[in-house]
Formats: sequence, structure tokens, C-alpha cells
Amino acid sequence: MPLQANDPSHTSWLEVPENSDFPIQNIPFGVFLTRDDVITIGTRIGDTAIDLGALHQLGYFKGIDLTDDIFLQDTLNDFIADGRKTWRLVRNRISEIFREGSHTELRDNEKHREQVLFSLDEIEMQLPVDVGDYTDFYASKEHATNVGTLFRGPENALMPNWLRIPIGYHGRSSSIIPSGTPIKRPIGQQKPGDDGVPGFGPSKLVDFELEMAFITTAANDLGKRISVEDAEEYIFGLVLFNDWSARDIQAWEYVPLGPFLGKSFASTISPWIVTLDALEGFRTDGPNQDPEPLPYLKQDGKKNFDIHLQAVIQPEGGEENVVANSNFKYMYWSMSQQLAHHTINGCNVRSGDMMGSGTISGPTKDSYGSMLELTWKGQNPLKLNDGSERKFINDNDTVILRGFCENDKVRIGFGDCSGKILPADPF
Amino acid sequence: MPLQANDPSHTSWLEVPENSDFPIQNIPFGVFLTRDDVITIGTRIGDTAIDLGALHQLGYFKGIDLTDDIFLQDTLNDFIADGRKTWRLVRNRISEIFREGSHTELRDNEKHREQVLFSLDEIEMQLPVDVGDYTDFYASKEHATNVGTLFRGPENALMPNWLRIPIGYHGRSSSIIPSGTPIKRPIGQQKPGDDGVPGFGPSKLVDFELEMAFITTAANDLGKRISVEDAEEYIFGLVLFNDWSARDIQAWEYVPLGPFLGKSFASTISPWIVTLDALEGFRTDGPNQDPEPLPYLKQDGKKNFDIHLQAVIQPEGGEENVVANSNFKYMYWSMSQQLAHHTINGCNVRSGDMMGSGTISGPTKDSYGSMLELTWKGQNPLKLNDGSERKFINDNDTVILRGFCENDKVRIGFGDCSGKILPADPF
Repeated sequence: MPLQANDPSHTSWLEVPENSDFPIQNIPFGVFLTRDDVITIGTRIGDTAIDLGALHQLGYFKGIDLTDDIFLQDTLNDFIADGRKTWRLVRNRISEIFREGSHTELRDNEKHREQVLFSLDEIEMQLPVDVGDYTDFYASKEHATNVGTLFRGPENALMPNWLRIPIGYHGRSSSIIPSGTPIKRPIGQQKPGDDGVPGFGPSKLVDFELEMAFITTAANDLGKRISVEDAEEYIFGLVLFNDWSARDIQAWEYVPLGPFLGKSFASTISPWIVTLDALEGFRTDGPNQDPEPLPYLKQDGKKNFDIHLQAVIQPEGGEENVVANSNFKYMYWSMSQQLAHHTINGCNVRSGDMMGSGTISGPTKDSYGSMLELTWKGQNPLKLNDGSERKFINDNDTVILRGFCENDKVRIGFGDCSGKILPADPF
Repeated sequence: MPLQANDPSHTSWLEVPENSDFPIQNIPFGVFLTRDDVITIGTRIGDTAIDLGALHQLGYFKGIDLTDDIFLQDTLNDFIADGRKTWRLVRNRISEIFREGSHTELRDNEKHREQVLFSLDEIEMQLPVDVGDYTDFYASKEHATNVGTLFRGPENALMPNWLRIPIGYHGRSSSIIPSGTPIKRPIGQQKPGDDGVPGFGPSKLVDFELEMAFITTAANDLGKRISVEDAEEYIFGLVLFNDWSARDIQAWEYVPLGPFLGKSFASTISPWIVTLDALEGFRTDGPNQDPEPLPYLKQDGKKNFDIHLQAVIQPEGGEENVVANSNFKYMYWSMSQQLAHHTINGCNVRSGDMMGSGTISGPTKDSYGSMLELTWKGQNPLKLNDGSERKFINDNDTVILRGFCENDKVRIGFGDCSGKILPADPF
């Protein structure tokens, strides 16, 4: 099925500001609360949110096989479960409806427009999916090397399994929150001092992790696998993902079973899921893989995506400071390889599952995706515009992740993935 | 509110076989498919399954504040979210309805009995909850010491954090299955041989882990904590839990982020959730905790439960072999401590979340809760009744976990937690 919605010559009769993340070629999916306190599934063009539930009720999706209430839900899980063919039909139809010079029915019907269109200040974005399981990978070689060097020295930086396995671990689903939700600084145990008694109190080393995450459709029954060739068929789309980390809690707890409370206090996602189809024009090769992956991980073609990524720190009432510029293309293990690996043992993947990339660091010092790496464990604090310094994230700092693809014809972006660290609750 | 349902003098007008796990003092909760292909919430007395949806429709729960469809659901999550007061009212009412010499309305109404009562061969047990997040702890000191000794030697058996923290990690929810569901032997990477290339193929070291798991009600919002004193208020009940493990896959993948595909191919639970209230009479002290836990983990009173646990291997067509006798009381960290720790960082716990104990091993060699420990990593194979030997679990072996509490008045049990390992799918 052709991706008509990607045609770069299309413009919308809705206003799209210059450099918007959301031209008519994007058409992301999200869930929002409307001014009438109704939860609905929607999309966005420029700065206009579009109620797909209302559009469907008004008959605009006629001819596409959809249940009546598919968009009148508080999560996208059922729509995602409908599969790629349906996602494409719906995305192409939305493109038609809002395209300049194509469909004029909605454009010329004020009553319908009133029911369907919202300005951004009239809506409140929600979590787009009910995340059944969330897995976090560790797929940037630069990040794994940096962290390994910091904790074990440069000789033992990469573990022997790292170049063979897309290393991942299970994360906590309950604490995944949409952009804009504030986060209390976590409390916990920290490494003992000389008296052998663990420290206890608010984390002193709260960090961000610059990641992306992909959301799956129901892919396989328990005991079945997904091949690396087929994997993309089961990927609905991508969000920005800040896997907040309390480095001191993590350092004390993580041996031998992995990160737990150092991560599970919050993970922030950008609320609009950008489909893999919208990113089609931005495929690129990934890093060279040496040694050659085992056969079940061997892939053909361009499976990485050229997505510019940025991390910003904004102190309370202050200016934004861009602290990192990275790119999703630096992922050593592709999403296809991650999904093939995840299911090689027969583990079943459901609609709405989320898989994080792990921190995405690039080759240069300004492309590292965490404060741990950017300040080299606090040894080289970052200087902000206002003259203050940061080793890690302070109370009342807001961290914003941004991401976009761009060529000479079109720019597809993700919007903000933002979260503010509030002081810890007194214990 | 008194726990009338626990009165050991009560008997039921339903037949209860001798040594049944399900006397009228148990009243567990589960979900089953009936002969009419309806999914309903139910309980069990003796070998009779009781349709609570039908009972409610017939008016037997009059006076208890319940929504009309609370039992006509395919999971217990909403009922569990109603909280402890409701669970007790319902459990006490069920006890009344089925008690000899109390309520005679159902006993004497054949039409009602036909709608409400099922023999076990007429029903099919389902997963009782939609598990939002599953956490696995590592709370038996004997198990952690055994595994540590096997992998790092006796001097470094327990990690320095172990006596301070109820160590846990996030597990995979999607692959939690009810007793009776067969499991295909998982495929995956294993440690490289001399050529440096990882092994690949069916796991050679499939193991069981003898655990219990508790199921929570919605406990705290993100950013809030549950105190160790209040924790039990949020625990609905317990099931037996077999955390199947592929030791060779696990050994190669787990550094530094913990177990992943070595666990996520399947975890089996017993389908009847036995409430904490039903276990009230079997409280006992846990192991002495030295060093003293940090204040947020300090607990008063008896927080452990004396539950006999057993693991059985049954080869295809052969006899049962009891290979381990352990007890839930060996848990070093109590469920209350686990829940207080889990939320100390503000991580939110939802209705239907599941928390596994980790493998429960006792002090003696016949009380170890995994083949890894029972055969000491395969060095001392177990001899079965039929003369065959087992280092780990063979294809077509069934592993059955059982658990029960007993005193001179009453026995409360969990039924079987059973799973059969099928040969791996060809790759």
C-alpha cells in the first residue's frame, strides 16, 4: 500500500507554522482530554489537535473497516492491534481530509470543524498507550563504552556479551508518564560509607537518559518468534523517552539483578506517537556490526533512522540550555534486531508494549545522552547560561528532550518530552 | 471487621474431600470459563467451583456495596481495587451461604444451585489478574547464598547489598501463564566456547524456581510511599509461582542489567488467589535480621507465613517425584518489607501487580527451591523413581509446585501450579 501521506508536495488547509514538528506528512497518534472532558484518540497538524473519534462519528472514515468506538478510547492499544494495513488506510485518509486542494467537505463545514478541531490549549495530552510491558535496551555502543569506562576502566569497558546480544532488561510500566508530569526526587538507599551503614535520603545524582522508544502491535503468541525481516511489521511508531535515573540508588542496588528503584520512580515519554511510516524517508545505515551478528540477528537494508536528538536543561524561570546533540542513527542494534532478539526465546509481545533504545550517545563529547557521561561522573560540570553549574539535575530543573528528522523537503518531529524534578517529599 | 470466615468449627454443605486445599475456611478467588463458555469470577469449596457472577445476579450479595458487573469480568483487577473491607465482606458472605446450618436459601434451591455450582471438569481456569507489572524479589538468604557460592565461591556468596536491601528486579508480565499451560523449551544464545562465538539453540539448562507471589491492590500514587506498617493492607493474596529459568541463557546475558530472556519465556502461577485473610492463622516470625534493617524497613509482629512448599517432577507417563520440601517462612525479607522498599522511591503500585518472592530455599539440601541448587549446578544429579537422572528439566517433564498451611484444626492450600516443558520449536 502506497504511503500517499508522505508526499512532500502536500500542504494542509490548516495552518502549519514554519519549522513545525507536525506538517501534514507527520500525522502522529495520541490521546487527549478535550475541553468537554472527553477522552479521545487524535492526531495533530501544526498547532491544531484533531479529534479522530468525532471525525469517525461524522463518517469521514467511511470505507475503512473500523469498529465504531475504535477512536473513542482512552488508549491506542486496540487501534494499534488492528495492524499496519489499517494504520496506513487511516493515515492516508487523514492526509486527504486535511490536504489543500483535495477533500473539501470538512474544510467547508464549520459545524464539523467545531466538533473536530481543537487548539492546543484546549486539550490535555494523556499517556497514548496502556503499556503492558516495557523493556529497555542498551543499544548505543558509545553509551555502553562510556559507562563501562567510568565504572570498570577503558580495558573492560564493553562486556564480552555486548557485541553479540542486544542487551536489555525489563523496566517498570506503572511509572511511565506523559510529557509535562512533574517528578518528585526519589528517596532511597545509597552506598555505605566507612561505617558500613547505607546512606538513606533523597538521591543526589538524578540524571536524564536521552532515549527513544518504539511501540509494538501484538506480534507473536507465547512460544513463537518474530524474524528480524518481519520485525518492522509489528512496530507502530516511536516516541522520545527520558529514562530518568538516580545514579546513587542504582549503583548500590543493581548487582546482580540489574537496575530497579534507580529507574522505576519515573520515565517520561513524548505524547504523540510518530509512525514508522512517517519516518520512511529518513532510513539510514546503522553502525558497522563487527563481529557479524548470529544468523537470527542478521539484517538487510537500512534499518536505522536519521533522527536528530537534543537534551535541554531549563532551570526554574531561566533559559533553555542545550546540553546534548545526538542522533537515533547511532544505535548499534536496530529496532528490528531488538524485537527479533526479544522473541527468540518465545516471549510474547502485545499491542502497546514499549521498548526503549537505551541512552543514545554519539561519538563526540557533546553528543552524550546523560549527565553521567556529559560531566564524566561529575568531574567536569556543565556551565549553564545563567552561570550556574550542573553535575546532575537540580531540584526545579526541567529537562526537555526533542527530536526531528529533516531533509530539504520536509521536517518530521516529535514535540517535547519534558519533565521537571521537584524536591523530595520529606521522610 | 472480624474474619468469621476463618472459624475452624465451620463445615460446608458442599462436600469437601479429606485433605482438600479448599475447605470452607479458604475461599480463594479465581477466574474461570464455564461450560457455557462464559468467563466469570469464582471461588472454590472442596471440588466445587462457584460462579460469583451468577450468585451476585441472584441477589446473594445484597447489602454489600458492589457494582452489578463486579464478578462478570475476565480479571479480578476491579474487585481487588475495591479494597480490603469489600474483600472481607464478600468472603464472610460466601462463608455464610455455604456453611452447614447457617444460610439455607441456596442449599435448598435446585435451580439456583444449577446456575452457580460447577464441577471442576466443567470449568477451565484462567489467569486471575491482568498483571500490570511483575516484580521478582530475591528474598531467601539460603537461595542467594547457594547461588552466590556456586558462581563466586563461598567467600563472596552474599553481595554486600543483600542484607540491606530486599533485592528485586522487574520481570515480564506478558508471559505469566496459569497452571496447566505447556511451555516450549526456549531457544537463545549461550556462553561462547573456545572460538569466541556464542552457542545458539535450545537451552540445555531449563530449571524451575519454587516461589510464591503476592498480588496487590492499588496502593499509592506516583511519588508517594507505603509504610512497612501499612503494607499488608494492600496485599490481596498469594499464589504459587514457578519462575522458569534457562540457566545457560541467563548466565550469558545477565551482566550488567540482570536476567532477561533466561526468564521471560514463561512464569507459571496457581490460578486460585488465597487471600491474606485466609492465611491469618499461620503467621510466624521470619529469620532474625542482622544487621538491623534501616528504619523504613523495620517491622513489628509476625510478618512471615508458615506455608509448606513442595516441588515435584513428573516424567511423561511416570510417577510424581517430590524433589524439594521448603517453606514460605524462610523468606528473609517479608512481603511488607518488599512493598515498603518497592515504593520508597515513589514507584506506584497498581491493582493486579504481582510480586514474586524469589526462589525459596531452606537450610537443608532437600529444601532447595531449584535444580541449580538441588543438583549443585548439575554435579549431583537427582535420581527419580523410574531410575532416570535429572540435572535439570527434560523435555516432556511436568513440574508441579504445591503449598499448604496446616494446624490441628484446618488446612488451607493453593492447589497445583503445574507446567510441562515441550521440546523446542525447530529453528
